[in-house]
Amino acid sequence: MKTMSLTTVKQVVGLTLAVGLASEIVYYLWRRRLVSRFGSYFLSKFNGSPTEAIDSTSEAESEAFTDPYLYKVLIFPDKARPCKAHLWGDGCRMEKCWFSHDERNSVYQFLSHIQSAEMTLDVCVYVMTDVELANCVISMKERGVFVRVITNLEAQNYTGTQVGKFRSRGIQVRTNTNYLMHHKFVVVDRKKVITGSFNWTSHATTANNENMIITDNPQIVDPYADEFDRLWKEFDPASQS
Amino acid sequence: MKTMSLTTVKQVVGLTLAVGLASEIVYYLWRRRLVSRFGSYFLSKFNGSPTEAIDSTSEAESEAFTDPYLYKVLIFPDKARPCKAHLWGDGCRMEKCWFSHDERNSVYQFLSHIQSAEMTLDVCVYVMTDVELANCVISMKERGVFVRVITNLEAQNYTGTQVGKFRSRGIQVRTNTNYLMHHKFVVVDRKKVITGSFNWTSHATTANNENMIITDNPQIVDPYADEFDRLWKEFDPASQS
Repeated sequence: MKTMSLTTVKQVVGLTLAVGLASEIVYYLWRRRLVSRFGSYFLSKFNGSPTEAIDSTSEAESEAFTDPYLYKVLIFPDKARPCKAHLWGDGCRMEKCWFSHDERNSVYQFLSHIQSAEMTLDVCVYVMTDVELANCVISMKERGVFVRVITNLEAQNYTGTQVGKFRSRGIQVRTNTNYLMHHKFVVVDRKKVITGSFNWTSHATTANNENMIITDNPQIVDPYADEFDRLWKEFDPASQS
Repeated sequence: MKTMSLTTVKQVVGLTLAVGLASEIVYYLWRRRLVSRFGSYFLSKFNGSPTEAIDSTSEAESEAFTDPYLYKVLIFPDKARPCKAHLWGDGCRMEKCWFSHDERNSVYQFLSHIQSAEMTLDVCVYVMTDVELANCVISMKERGVFVRVITNLEAQNYTGTQVGKFRSRGIQVRTNTNYLMHHKFVVVDRKKVITGSFNWTSHATTANNENMIITDNPQIVDPYADEFDRLWKEFDPASQS
């Protein structure tokens, strides 16, 4: 291999920089989809196809991105409650089982997300009379998750309310002193929120029209986690006159 | 300038490709934040700072992306209802105005998003007794927006219900026949959803603890728009026996 003269070295460096710069410009144009837009435009000149091809890339597509967050919408009512043996246990052995064996079942998905808690579970729900949903929260407490519950004062006296059971299992429950504590949300590990129209009643699961969003996008989770902490302080019996 | 020999040209091309490839690798590593992580690691070796700097970049930051969607969480109660003259009109002239002059006011933001409708407004809310919220929907109908309302049958008879007013202004209202239609959401132009625990009552705005999510992420909006269409068909009086 011949050694290169100083001039040649300069040319090599110059060319390299020029090619590098050109590739950055092409990459930038590609990012902006100008290449593909003008590409289609010029192609259309040759092919005689109409020029509306220029705008064939929609705004949404042109700024493509990969969203790493979970967004799930659950719609109620379910046709049936989930079959525990089939979905959580070692299989359903009933000949004719009335419960749901479908993983798309909304209550099944809701409970699965509650069960995903590893550290903390903050439950802030207006009415809680459903035994199975309450038991799920209690089982998380027994697994070592730190559970806090906020509910509506009036709803403490609802027939079948689970508040007494929470307290007897050592779960702290706090309530409002005035108006309705009408939220229906759960914050899991301060990383995920489950929120909607859904009170924890059996009617909400298999009769009413209800909805729920589950997401771990911090833009949504953080305001709910903050609201829980704010109410937890506000409803602290020690701070109430 | 001397002309280059064939060998030199080959060297130039080879070098250019090598530099180009190297720059792509560096760019890829930068994207993965490996450079900055190992950068801090090696820097820490020289500076003697602790090596936990390696993990200073959180997972969320390392996969940075630009999310083009709106995510807004509104928390109620507000301290006061919005001052219409200040926030929508030509300025408040009251010496002492009891209404809110703050654009962060939750009702103000909620109504602003309803008023952003250009084509369609699908309202699916359990109880609607608040006059101002109902009037906002009626004003959208008068601006030419196609408005549909679904509400709960029982709630049609609530004291102060706005359902009769909707109907008298030519807005179609449909209701359930069984159990509770307990949703509380609005779909704007099939592109944005406003959903939460919030019934359209005056207590919900300035007394109760309530929440609302506003987003235009289609992963959330589409299931709500579909649910509205499904219920609209299901609650069609012509299809009900």
